[in-house]
Amino acid sequence: MEARDLFEEIRPLFGILRSFSTRAQNMRLGQIGRLRVISTPPLGYSLGVRALRSFHAARPDVSVSYDVRRLENVVDTVQTGLADIGLVLNEEKLETVNSELLTRSQMVVLMPTNDPLAAETSITPKMLAGRSVIGIDQASQLGRLVSRGFVQGGGSYRPSIEVRYCQTAAALVAEGMGVTVVDPYSAEPYLCRGLVTRPFSPACEVRALILTRKGVPHSGLLLNFVEELRRQLPIGTPKPHHPPGY
Amino acid sequence: MEARDLFEEIRPLFGILRSFSTRAQNMRLGQIGRLRVISTPPLGYSLGVRALRSFHAARPDVSVSYDVRRLENVVDTVQTGLADIGLVLNEEKLETVNSELLTRSQMVVLMPTNDPLAAETSITPKMLAGRSVIGIDQASQLGRLVSRGFVQGGGSYRPSIEVRYCQTAAALVAEGMGVTVVDPYSAEPYLCRGLVTRPFSPACEVRALILTRKGVPHSGLLLNFVEELRRQLPIGTPKPHHPPGY
Repeated sequence: MEARDLFEEIRPLFGILRSFSTRAQNMRLGQIGRLRVISTPPLGYSLGVRALRSFHAARPDVSVSYDVRRLENVVDTVQTGLADIGLVLNEEKLETVNSELLTRSQMVVLMPTNDPLAAETSITPKMLAGRSVIGIDQASQLGRLVSRGFVQGGGSYRPSIEVRYCQTAAALVAEGMGVTVVDPYSAEPYLCRGLVTRPFSPACEVRALILTRKGVPHSGLLLNFVEELRRQLPIGTPKPHHPPGY
Repeated sequence: MEARDLFEEIRPLFGILRSFSTRAQNMRLGQIGRLRVISTPPLGYSLGVRALRSFHAARPDVSVSYDVRRLENVVDTVQTGLADIGLVLNEEKLETVNSELLTRSQMVVLMPTNDPLAAETSITPKMLAGRSVIGIDQASQLGRLVSRGFVQGGGSYRPSIEVRYCQTAAALVAEGMGVTVVDPYSAEPYLCRGLVTRPFSPACEVRALILTRKGVPHSGLLLNFVEELRRQLPIGTPKPHHPPGY
């Protein structure tokens, strides 16, 4: 009887230990915990959000913070450890964070589905002469890339409307204001909204990178998210955006 | 003969004067020149882009720069005169720029068209209990507004996914990841993509403002653009986004 009394005394401990070990195992399996993602708009509104969707569906108890910001903020936030992973399109060398290549792709021309140029397999600057082209600010990396592409292709790049970000250019094309040359990720959310892309020629490569903090081991959740990113990677041009419930 | 010779001598002057006066008249009418617009995402991807579309269609020779940035950048850019007009949602007092009320509206719940809550005329925090709610970072103005609304409505606000901007929240809802409470402008681009909005209750008011530089008279082009903004203002909830070519 004394033994049983004593056992009753410590019985709650077993419950606590069971709960602890389940929690530890869940954390090891990446079922609970916290993931903080930060991305620039191109990947943040395409690949990143698709990866987050599968990630979250499989791990509803993981608390997630998901920010879309510009390049400087993404790099700073990853460097200071306020985010676990950063997603960017970038050609320049980053010194303050680890960067890993996710995939390479090429700039595309984004236009209405019923545009005569949609019949072409690729589009040169000369084909765009006389068209209303939404231009990307040449203070930005992608803007310089497009501008160099026009020069190499023997065209002149004099957009009547200039914007800072590819996402803004895509929104203006969706509003029927012209065509634009952007990265395929910025174009992706518009592919179900009456717009279509064709490769821009000469080919201008863009690299999608994963940024992580230097000197910090990757958590299980981070590795799961990267796995989802790779699984959602489109072959070539991104597939059209799926409507909810698809 | 001498008079005719002399006339021939000055004839080119008449052409120059004609061209000058046409150009001056065009500038007065706002047909040529330059307009620089900067906006935060909610208005920049809804009302602003619709106003820009009509503005540009009527004045194809006006060179336009159109940037979508966050609040601090918009205020700074207008203050320093690098943009002619700023568009923001804001409740706080701005000291460094002129601000003029464009319109008032209310926060809405954004959800898939087939969501059972779409049958309601307004949605309270209690109706959202147990749902996957995409939350807005409470470091932001709109995030605080939503959080206060949940408290007033007797609900608890514990989003499993948190984002910084309303636009990101809307993109996650479009991907089928839950529902969110956002301003009606951030919701607008998604209304043609299988999502619908209903008023959030208790009512949380958002004010759309026009910012201009202090001490600088408004140019003709600026006034034309403001006129387009007012013309494109929706009555109550914004109308669905029109596909290109509409």
